[in-house]
Order: sequence, then C-alpha cells, then structure tokens
Amino acid sequence: MFIEKVMPRFSETDALGHINNTVLPVWFEAARAPIFKFFTPDLNPHDWKLIIAKVEVSFVGELFYGDEVTIKTSVEQVGTSSFVLRQEAHQGDKCCAVGKTVLVRYDFAAKAKQALSDTEKASLQAHLTPES
Amino acid sequence: MFIEKVMPRFSETDALGHINNTVLPVWFEAARAPIFKFFTPDLNPHDWKLIIAKVEVSFVGELFYGDEVTIKTSVEQVGTSSFVLRQEAHQGDKCCAVGKTVLVRYDFAAKAKQALSDTEKASLQAHLTPES
Amino acid sequence: MFIEKVMPRFSETDALGHINNTVLPVWFEAARAPIFKFFTPDLNPHDWKLIIAKVEVSFVGELFYGDEVTIKTSVEQVGTSSFVLRQEAHQGDKCCAVGKTVLVRYDFAAKAKQALSDTEKASLQAHLTPES
Amino acid sequence: MFIEKVMPRFSETDALGHINNTVLPVWFEAARAPIFKFFTPDLNPHDWKLIIAKVEVSFVGELFYGDEVTIKTSVEQVGTSSFVLRQEAHQGDKCCAVGKTVLVRYDFAAKAKQALSDTEKASLQAHLTPES
Repeated sequence: MFIEKVMPRFSETDALGHINNTVLPVWFEAARAPIFKFFTPDLNPHDWKLIIAKVEVSFVGELFYGDEVTIKTSVEQVGTSSFVLRQEAHQGDKCCAVGKTVLVRYDFAAKAKQALSDTEKASLQAHLTPES
Repeated sequence: MFIEKVMPRFSETDALGHINNTVLPVWFEAARAPIFKFFTPDLNPHDWKLIIAKVEVSFVGELFYGDEVTIKTSVEQVGTSSFVLRQEAHQGDKCCAVGKTVLVRYDFAAKAKQALSDTEKASLQAHLTPES
Repeated sequence: MFIEKVMPRFSETDALGHINNTVLPVWFEAARAPIFKFFTPDLNPHDWKLIIAKVEVSFVGELFYGDEVTIKTSVEQVGTSSFVLRQEAHQGDKCCAVGKTVLVRYDFAAKAKQALSDTEKASLQAHLTPES
Repeated sequence: MFIEKVMPRFSETDALGHINNTVLPVWFEAARAPIFKFFTPDLNPHDWKLIIAKVEVSFVGELFYGDEVTIKTSVEQVGTSSFVLRQEAHQGDKCCAVGKTVLVRYDFAAKAKQALSDTEKASLQAHLTPES
C-alpha cells in the first residue's frame, strides 16, 4: 500500500465550506505517482504508458481545509492489459472518500492497449489491497 | 434531457495533449446547474439542498482542445431521498465520456438526508433518460 | 474588443462563498481563445506560438456563483515580439476584476522568442483597448 | 522566509508539456498557509480575515511534471491594512516563477478593510524578504 500526504488548498474548498467533490479525482491522480513510476520511472510524460478507462469516487464524509489528508493506494485487481486501484482519503481518523480507478496499459504510438509485462504485473501484485 | 455546451480550456489539457480525466467531473458538475435549480432556483449556495454520494466516469474516447463539447444530462433513477443522473460528453459526433452521479437531498442544518418532495420528484421524472 | 461569456462553476467557489481568486487567470486564459486564433487558427496545441511572460490580476469586487460573467478582452500594447492584453470580468453591471497579460511570440522548436509578423500585429492592433 | 514543497500533479500539466501558467497562483496560495495562520491559527474559513487585492506572476522558466517544486515566501512590504508577499517557485536549481500578492486585512461582517494589529505586523516583519 502506498501512503501519500496531501494538504488541502484553500482553492479546493467550495461555497459549502468543505473540499469540493471534483478535487478527489485530482488528489487520487496525484497519489498514483508511485504506480505511474512502475511504467515510467522518471515520470516523463513523453514516455507515458497508461490511460484511464474508469474513475469512481464514493463520498463517505466531508473533507475540510486546515488538516492534512492521507491517501492510501492499493491494487485491487490485475488483468491482462488493465488493473484496478483502490484509493482512500482519510482525514483525522476518518475515511472520507473511496476511489476506484481502472487503468489500461496503452501504446500511444499504435493507439492500442497492450498486455502488461510480467515485471509490471509483479510490481502491481506486490501492492494488493489487504483483505479486510 | 438537458443540453449544455462547454468550450474546453487550454488549462484543462494535459501533457498527453488532450483533456485531462479530472476535468470531466468538473464539466459534469457545471452541467448539473439546471438540476440544481429544481432545488435552489436562484443557485444561492447558502440555500443548497444536495450532496453528492458517488461519482463515476467512464472514458470512451479522447477529448481535445479547440472544439466545443456537448454535455447531455438526464435522470436515470429517482429514489426516496436520492437520485441518479446520467451525463454524456460529446465532441464532434462522438460520445467521449459517460458519467453517473448519485445525489442526495440533504438538510445541511440537521446534517441528515431528507425525502425528495413530490414536486422535486416530478421535476426529475420529467427528464428521465430516454430508453435506447 | 472580444466579449466572452463564462458561467461560474460550483467548483470555482471557495469557503468564503464567492469565486476563488485563482479562477480568474483560468477564465482570462479561456477568454483569450480569439487572440490565440490569430496565431493558431485551428487552436491545435502542436502548432502553438505563444508563451506567457507575466500575468497580473487586480480584484475589484467579489464574483458569485449563479450569474453569468462577461469577459472583455482588448489589446493594450503591441511590441516587437510581445504584446499586452487587458481583460475585465464583469458580473451584473460591475467590473469585478481586471487582468493584464504579457504574451510573447515564441518558436518552440528553437526555444527563442520571435518577432510578430505584420499580419499578427495588424490583427492585434484592430482590437486595441478603447481610450477611456 | 517560509519554504513549502509542492509535487506537481499530472492534471497541472498542459498540452505544451509543462505546468500550465494558471497553476502558479494555486501553488502560491497553497504556500501562503503559514501567513494565513498569523491571522487564523486554526485555518478555519469561518474566521477568515484576509482578502486579496492583487496577484502578479512573472514566468521566468518552464516548470515540469516529475520534480518537486520549492516555494519560497517572504514579506516584501507591510502597510497599515495591507501587505505584499513575494513568492518564488524553484525547480532543480532554477527560479521558474516569481509572484507578488497584495493581501488586505478585512472584516467580512462589516465588509470593510481593517488596520493590521501590532502583533500581526510584527509576525509579518519577522519574515521580510532578505535584501539581495
């Protein structure tokens, strides 16, 4: 499991006084950097190998400005050319949002999906979501 | 069905050359304004009555800077205190993203969900997703 | 003068109840599209010819969710390889923010600024800020 | 001087391959948190005391995804009811953007600016921009 810390930004609040729902996909994408490095170790966008097929966020509780948020990222499932991540955003001792993202190994030149290599699969499988 | 037009912004592109995936929830929220008006006709945030329980976006094709996007919003399902919206983002003649959002009628003072009124239900049901 | 309309998005508000200050540079960039077309008529980012040297925004009044904003863009000054835009954001009958942006004609391959062509200068000069 | 670290987000890049110019005001606002705490120690937005009068960003060099950015914040000038911050965004050993922000001590209930207290002035003056 990967743990990333995010400090909410004032610009990420909305008129209801808490973090706007559209910010969660942004934080979750930011927290996927350790996963991105399995595919592009130097994070060079010209050498990118992933596209996103689906994003899903369940909002469990409000998130506020002023307190650090912890994003926990784990791998839920590994397929032939795609995989599913589970991400949680915690503030204080509360899980406030749960995300699932389907990412696809992609060849941008050929504009086609590609099979995950054995190395990539192994990297992902080393971070499977713990059974609860 | 509600039709809203969005002109992609340069700041909404990413280093892969198209619209970043995190922008879709932003566009979809913007295109929910006609739905928001069923609950808060003047859109005054101090009189807000909805919270978001879940957001889901499926990415079907790339979206580009330079061409207008059409967002189609319809009501997929109406429950007791919540409802589900379906939204599509079209560019040219292609559907590039499909979103589903679960919204809940909420009493911010009491911090509790509330039943949808008959008027609210009727407003929503007048915009049901057409059967395909 | 170019006139563009922007409908504020809920995600652009902040916890103080109005539009967050960081949104103005985003709206102003979006409203520069007609200027961008002088340089890249089809707005293809691969054929981009401008970089930004400086941005400045003065905040004159609050901007709110729920009412359309009008962005007025004019050309304040045309130099050899750069030009200055003036932009105003109006809501209701009030000017709420004034922006100035310095843009530079740039050759991305050579990584060097370039002189504006006579055609580009003429296009810009046709939209000079009216004397007040 | 306050030093804050920011890891660029993929969603903050644009189609030109580097960080979009509109992101700098967002990072600079995020890096003003230690200054905000002089006025609102717990960062509670309901107890906010500052508004922004002007923002200015000079772009000196490109900023890229993949490398941490250091934001340096210092106080350039302290007036009766307002003050000016200077902020720099460094990546690697290069200063890539310089920002100036004018902030005003504000009474949101009375909708009027207020004089800075002696304590607030002293807090700000303890972080003056070093003479170069």
